[in-house]
Amino acid sequence: MAQYFAPLDDVFQALADPTRRAVLSRLGTGPATVSELARPFDMALPSFMKHIRLLEKSGWVRTRKVGRVRTCTIDETSFAAVDGWLAAQRDLWEGRADRLENFVTATQTQEKRS
Amino acid sequence: MAQYFAPLDDVFQALADPTRRAVLSRLGTGPATVSELARPFDMALPSFMKHIRLLEKSGWVRTRKVGRVRTCTIDETSFAAVDGWLAAQRDLWEGRADRLENFVTATQTQEKRS
Repeated sequence: MAQYFAPLDDVFQALADPTRRAVLSRLGTGPATVSELARPFDMALPSFMKHIRLLEKSGWVRTRKVGRVRTCTIDETSFAAVDGWLAAQRDLWEGRADRLENFVTATQTQEKRS
Repeated sequence: MAQYFAPLDDVFQALADPTRRAVLSRLGTGPATVSELARPFDMALPSFMKHIRLLEKSGWVRTRKVGRVRTCTIDETSFAAVDGWLAAQRDLWEGRADRLENFVTATQTQEKRS
Protein backbone atom coordinates (compact mmCIF):
# COMPACT_ATOMS: atom_id res chain seq x y z
CA MET A 1 0.00 0.00 0.00
CA ALA A 2 2.72 2.51 -0.97
CA GLN A 3 1.12 5.94 -1.12
CA TYR A 4 2.61 9.27 -2.05
CA PHE A 5 1.91 12.10 0.35
CA ALA A 6 2.90 15.65 -0.61
CA PRO A 7 4.79 17.49 2.18
CA LEU A 8 2.45 19.43 4.50
CA ASP A 9 4.22 22.68 3.52
CA ASP A 10 3.03 22.23 -0.08
CA VAL A 11 -0.42 20.99 0.99
CA PHE A 12 -1.07 24.18 3.01
CA GLN A 13 0.69 26.50 0.54
CA ALA A 14 -1.75 25.32 -2.13
CA LEU A 15 -4.70 26.45 0.02
CA ALA A 16 -3.30 29.98 0.53
CA ASP A 17 -4.95 31.26 -2.65
CA PRO A 18 -8.64 31.96 -3.43
CA THR A 19 -8.45 30.67 -7.04
CA ARG A 20 -7.00 27.34 -5.93
CA ARG A 21 -9.55 26.95 -3.12
CA ALA A 22 -12.35 27.69 -5.60
CA VAL A 23 -10.97 25.06 -8.02
CA LEU A 24 -10.91 22.48 -5.20
CA SER A 25 -14.50 23.34 -4.23
CA ARG A 26 -15.58 22.89 -7.86
CA LEU A 27 -13.69 19.56 -8.12
CA GLY A 28 -15.37 18.47 -4.88
CA THR A 29 -18.58 18.12 -6.90
CA GLY A 30 -16.88 15.91 -9.56
CA PRO A 31 -14.11 15.86 -12.21
CA ALA A 32 -13.83 18.74 -14.71
CA THR A 33 -11.69 19.73 -17.68
CA VAL A 34 -9.17 22.58 -17.36
CA SER A 35 -11.34 24.77 -19.66
CA GLU A 36 -14.42 24.19 -17.49
CA LEU A 37 -12.42 25.01 -14.36
CA ALA A 38 -10.91 28.17 -15.90
CA ARG A 39 -14.25 29.59 -17.13
CA PRO A 40 -15.33 31.50 -13.96
CA PHE A 41 -11.96 33.24 -13.66
CA ASP A 42 -10.86 36.41 -15.43
CA MET A 43 -7.37 35.01 -16.01
CA ALA A 44 -5.16 34.08 -18.98
CA LEU A 45 -4.93 30.31 -19.47
CA PRO A 46 -1.14 30.13 -18.77
CA SER A 47 -1.69 31.86 -15.39
CA PHE A 48 -4.57 29.52 -14.61
CA MET A 49 -2.43 26.50 -15.57
CA LYS A 50 0.17 27.56 -12.98
CA HIS A 51 -2.50 27.13 -10.30
CA ILE A 52 -3.46 23.71 -11.68
CA ARG A 53 0.20 22.61 -11.74
CA LEU A 54 0.69 23.79 -8.15
CA LEU A 55 -2.43 21.87 -7.08
CA GLU A 56 -1.05 18.81 -8.89
CA LYS A 57 2.45 19.13 -7.37
CA SER A 58 1.00 19.61 -3.88
CA GLY A 59 -1.06 16.42 -4.17
CA TRP A 60 -4.52 18.03 -4.26
CA VAL A 61 -5.40 17.29 -7.87
CA ARG A 62 -4.68 14.54 -10.38
CA THR A 63 -4.83 15.39 -14.09
CA ARG A 64 -5.13 13.17 -17.15
CA LYS A 65 -4.79 14.27 -20.75
CA VAL A 66 -6.76 12.50 -23.47
CA GLY A 67 -6.14 14.03 -26.89
CA ARG A 68 -6.20 17.79 -26.33
CA VAL A 69 -8.42 17.69 -23.25
CA ARG A 70 -6.93 17.63 -19.73
CA THR A 71 -9.34 16.43 -17.04
CA CYS A 72 -8.80 17.13 -13.33
CA THR A 73 -9.91 15.03 -10.36
CA ILE A 74 -9.55 15.88 -6.67
CA ASP A 75 -7.08 13.76 -4.68
CA GLU A 76 -8.49 13.15 -1.23
CA THR A 77 -5.15 12.18 0.39
CA SER A 78 -4.23 15.87 0.84
CA PHE A 79 -7.62 16.50 2.44
CA ALA A 80 -6.82 13.63 4.83
CA ALA A 81 -3.41 15.20 5.58
CA VAL A 82 -5.04 18.53 6.61
CA ASP A 83 -7.68 16.65 8.58
CA GLY A 84 -4.95 14.65 10.35
CA TRP A 85 -3.03 17.78 11.29
CA LEU A 86 -6.19 19.40 12.69
CA ALA A 87 -7.08 16.24 14.65
CA ALA A 88 -3.57 16.18 16.20
CA GLN A 89 -3.98 19.83 17.29
CA ARG A 90 -7.40 19.07 18.73
CA ASP A 91 -5.92 16.17 20.75
CA LEU A 92 -3.28 18.52 22.20
CA TRP A 93 -5.94 21.05 23.23
CA GLU A 94 -8.26 18.44 24.65
CA GLY A 95 -5.34 16.88 26.57
CA ARG A 96 -4.70 20.33 27.98
CA ALA A 97 -8.38 20.74 28.95
CA ASP A 98 -8.33 17.27 30.57
CA ARG A 99 -5.17 18.13 32.55
CA LEU A 100 -6.82 21.35 33.73
CA GLU A 101 -9.96 19.45 34.78
CA ASN A 102 -7.87 16.84 36.67
CA PHE A 103 -6.01 19.65 38.42
CA VAL A 104 -9.24 21.39 39.44
CA THR A 105 -10.81 18.09 40.67
CA ALA A 106 -7.65 17.17 42.63
CA THR A 107 -7.55 20.65 44.21
CA GLN A 108 -11.23 20.47 45.18
CA THR A 109 -10.71 17.00 46.75
CA GLN A 110 -7.74 18.30 48.74
CA GLU A 111 -9.78 21.32 49.88
CA LYS A 112 -12.63 19.10 51.09
CA ARG A 113 -10.15 16.96 53.06
CA SER A 114 -8.48 19.90 54.75
CA MET B 1 -19.95 39.92 19.11
CA ALA B 2 -17.67 41.64 16.60
CA GLN B 3 -14.81 39.23 15.85
CA TYR B 4 -11.75 39.66 13.67
CA PHE B 5 -11.05 36.83 11.27
CA ALA B 6 -7.78 36.81 9.35
CA PRO B 7 -8.26 36.15 5.60
CA LEU B 8 -8.09 32.44 4.74
CA ASP B 9 -5.06 33.12 2.48
CA ASP B 10 -3.05 34.23 5.52
CA VAL B 11 -4.47 31.49 7.74
CA PHE B 12 -3.26 28.77 5.34
CA GLN B 13 -0.02 30.55 4.43
CA ALA B 14 0.94 30.50 8.12
CA LEU B 15 0.62 26.70 8.16
CA ALA B 16 2.92 26.21 5.14
CA ASP B 17 6.04 26.12 7.33
CA PRO B 18 7.31 23.42 9.75
CA THR B 19 8.60 25.93 12.38
CA ARG B 20 5.24 27.69 12.55
CA ARG B 21 3.32 24.40 12.75
CA ALA B 22 5.64 23.26 15.59
CA VAL B 23 5.05 26.55 17.45
CA LEU B 24 1.28 26.08 17.15
CA SER B 25 1.55 22.48 18.44
CA ARG B 26 3.59 23.71 21.42
CA LEU B 27 1.06 26.51 22.10
CA GLY B 28 -1.72 23.94 21.90
CA THR B 29 -0.51 22.64 25.28
CA GLY B 30 -0.63 26.14 26.86
CA PRO B 31 0.84 29.69 26.65
CA ALA B 32 4.62 30.14 26.36
CA THR B 33 7.15 32.97 26.18
CA VAL B 34 8.98 33.69 22.93
CA SER B 35 12.27 32.43 24.46
CA GLU B 36 10.64 29.13 25.48
CA LEU B 37 9.16 28.75 22.01
CA ALA B 38 12.46 29.57 20.28
CA ARG B 39 14.55 27.11 22.34
CA PRO B 40 14.06 23.92 20.24
CA PHE B 41 15.00 25.72 17.00
CA ASP B 42 18.49 26.31 15.66
CA MET B 43 17.57 29.82 14.51
CA ALA B 44 18.59 33.41 15.28
CA LEU B 45 15.99 35.24 17.39
CA PRO B 46 15.18 37.86 14.69
CA SER B 47 14.38 35.05 12.22
CA PHE B 48 12.26 33.29 14.81
CA MET B 49 10.41 36.55 15.59
CA LYS B 50 9.44 36.79 11.90
CA HIS B 51 7.56 33.51 12.30
CA ILE B 52 5.87 34.75 15.49
CA ARG B 53 4.82 37.99 13.77
CA LEU B 54 3.43 36.06 10.80
CA LEU B 55 1.46 33.82 13.18
CA GLU B 56 0.16 36.95 14.93
CA LYS B 57 -0.77 38.73 11.68
CA SER B 58 -2.52 35.63 10.34
CA GLY B 59 -4.68 35.35 13.48
CA TRP B 60 -3.15 32.15 14.89
CA VAL B 61 -1.37 33.63 17.89
CA ARG B 62 -1.92 36.50 20.32
CA THR B 63 1.09 37.99 22.08
CA ARG B 64 1.35 40.19 25.16
CA LYS B 65 4.47 41.91 26.43
CA VAL B 66 4.96 42.44 30.16
CA GLY B 67 8.28 44.15 30.91
CA ARG B 68 10.80 42.43 28.63
CA VAL B 69 8.91 39.16 28.35
CA ARG B 70 6.55 38.47 25.44
CA THR B 71 4.06 35.67 26.07
CA CYS B 72 2.19 33.90 23.24
CA THR B 73 -1.24 32.26 23.35
CA ILE B 74 -2.95 30.31 20.57
CA ASP B 75 -6.00 31.96 18.98
CA GLU B 76 -8.58 29.29 18.22
CA THR B 77 -10.57 31.38 15.71
CA SER B 78 -8.08 30.50 12.93
CA PHE B 79 -8.41 26.83 13.84
CA ALA B 80 -12.19 27.27 13.47
CA ALA B 81 -11.65 28.92 10.05
CA VAL B 82 -9.65 25.90 8.76
CA ASP B 83 -12.17 23.52 10.29
CA GLY B 84 -15.01 25.44 8.60
CA TRP B 85 -13.32 25.28 5.22
CA LEU B 86 -12.77 21.52 5.58
CA ALA B 87 -16.38 20.98 6.67
CA ALA B 88 -17.64 22.89 3.59
CA GLN B 89 -15.48 20.67 1.33
CA ARG B 90 -16.77 17.55 3.08
CA ASP B 91 -20.36 18.68 2.49
CA LEU B 92 -19.64 19.10 -1.23
CA TRP B 93 -18.15 15.58 -1.44
CA GLU B 94 -20.90 13.98 0.58
CA GLY B 95 -23.49 15.77 -1.56
CA ARG B 96 -21.77 14.27 -4.58
CA ALA B 97 -21.76 10.78 -2.98
CA ASP B 98 -25.49 11.16 -2.16
CA ARG B 99 -26.27 12.22 -5.75
CA LEU B 100 -24.36 9.17 -7.03
CA GLU B 101 -26.26 6.87 -4.64
CA ASN B 102 -29.62 8.38 -5.72
CA PHE B 103 -28.63 7.85 -9.36
CA VAL B 104 -27.65 4.20 -8.75
CA THR B 105 -30.86 3.52 -6.78
CA ALA B 106 -33.01 5.20 -9.46
CA THR B 107 -31.26 3.19 -12.20
CA GLN B 108 -31.73 -0.09 -10.31
CA THR B 109 -35.46 0.68 -9.77
CA GLN B 110 -35.84 1.41 -13.50
CA GLU B 111 -34.03 -1.83 -14.37
CA LYS B 112 -36.32 -3.88 -12.13
CA ARG B 113 -39.40 -2.31 -13.78
CA SER B 114 -38.22 -2.99 -17.33
